[in-house]
Amino acid sequence: MKRIADSTVRRLSVYLRYLEDLAARGIATTSSDELAQHSGTTPAQVRKDLSFFGSFGKRGLGYSVAELSERIRRILGLEREWKVVIIGAGKIGSALSTYRGFRQRGFTVVGVYDKDPAKVGRRWDSQTVRHVDELEADAARLKPDIAVLAIPAEDIQPEVDRIVRSGIRAILNFAPAQVQPPPGVALKNVNMAMELEGLSYALTNRE
Amino acid sequence: MKRIADSTVRRLSVYLRYLEDLAARGIATTSSDELAQHSGTTPAQVRKDLSFFGSFGKRGLGYSVAELSERIRRILGLEREWKVVIIGAGKIGSALSTYRGFRQRGFTVVGVYDKDPAKVGRRWDSQTVRHVDELEADAARLKPDIAVLAIPAEDIQPEVDRIVRSGIRAILNFAPAQVQPPPGVALKNVNMAMELEGLSYALTNRE
Repeated sequence: MKRIADSTVRRLSVYLRYLEDLAARGIATTSSDELAQHSGTTPAQVRKDLSFFGSFGKRGLGYSVAELSERIRRILGLEREWKVVIIGAGKIGSALSTYRGFRQRGFTVVGVYDKDPAKVGRRWDSQTVRHVDELEADAARLKPDIAVLAIPAEDIQPEVDRIVRSGIRAILNFAPAQVQPPPGVALKNVNMAMELEGLSYALTNRE
Repeated sequence: MKRIADSTVRRLSVYLRYLEDLAARGIATTSSDELAQHSGTTPAQVRKDLSFFGSFGKRGLGYSVAELSERIRRILGLEREWKVVIIGAGKIGSALSTYRGFRQRGFTVVGVYDKDPAKVGRRWDSQTVRHVDELEADAARLKPDIAVLAIPAEDIQPEVDRIVRSGIRAILNFAPAQVQPPPGVALKNVNMAMELEGLSYALTNRE
């Protein structure tokens, strides 16, 4: 299959949410117009995005909600469980560890780590915070797929190195530092201030 | 000025972070190659993005870090303070209210709101949590620019309506629900599960 751009993958996630919403309401078909309207894009973009997976939908009949959901779930790799470790037991880590949206999607938190002795040993939802020095040994046993980094920016590089040594091949970084992905590792930076900058841009440049 | 695509605005934020990093290290010039390498994009894309603001940089000499930073800050509307209210005093709201990256960028939290009587009145950093019913009256006085929504998905629509009634024209939504922007309101949805889906896609489709 062709490599899909990040922006397309992101729109697929948005389409999937709307499709699941339709399914929950017992609606069996939808159209590119409707998908576009609920996803902040154009019908032409929807058709282009969905054309990556071969032909879909029938002119005048629209898309089957069940079939389209299932195909998008398969593309996004959501038909299996993904094991997630959270590095950083601060406020963001805490918010993430109990985020309902994760478990609904098959992302299971299998460990929470910190280096602060005041946090290590604390009970967190279904987890006990462990010292980050245990990560490599734990990972050999638990085989986590994804590490979420929720630590201060200045601590980031040694933790990225440790994650890579632990054999984890995907990182979601919440630290306000742009991290370069190590070779063979998928990495996404989530920067909350950057999201606000998108809004300050919109407020500044509105007509 | 031309309307700039969201993806371009996002890259400008990334470039700005790298430029500030260079400035902090006392480095006065950079190149499109270097900007691209540190921003996960191509030199051609960097040149294209920066061409929106007219001509920049000299072949063989590169870009002035100070000049480019200043122009990007101006484009993004970062030369002023933006007042932010947080709706939802739960874990995500709490993490956001003390997020250092916000204040560094000129985003000042001027109010935190909840509807839960157990949370209203609690002290939060420099704020006391107020009942969300006070938002409209407070907004008339404080004139917040941006509302951050960190509440459960099922509560979202009445709060969006209230924000709009309060005269706030930009919303950053952390609730796991895709919200349609009301007319004249800039809206960004941040969905943490969607970020993980980008990674599950990458892990599933790696060569």
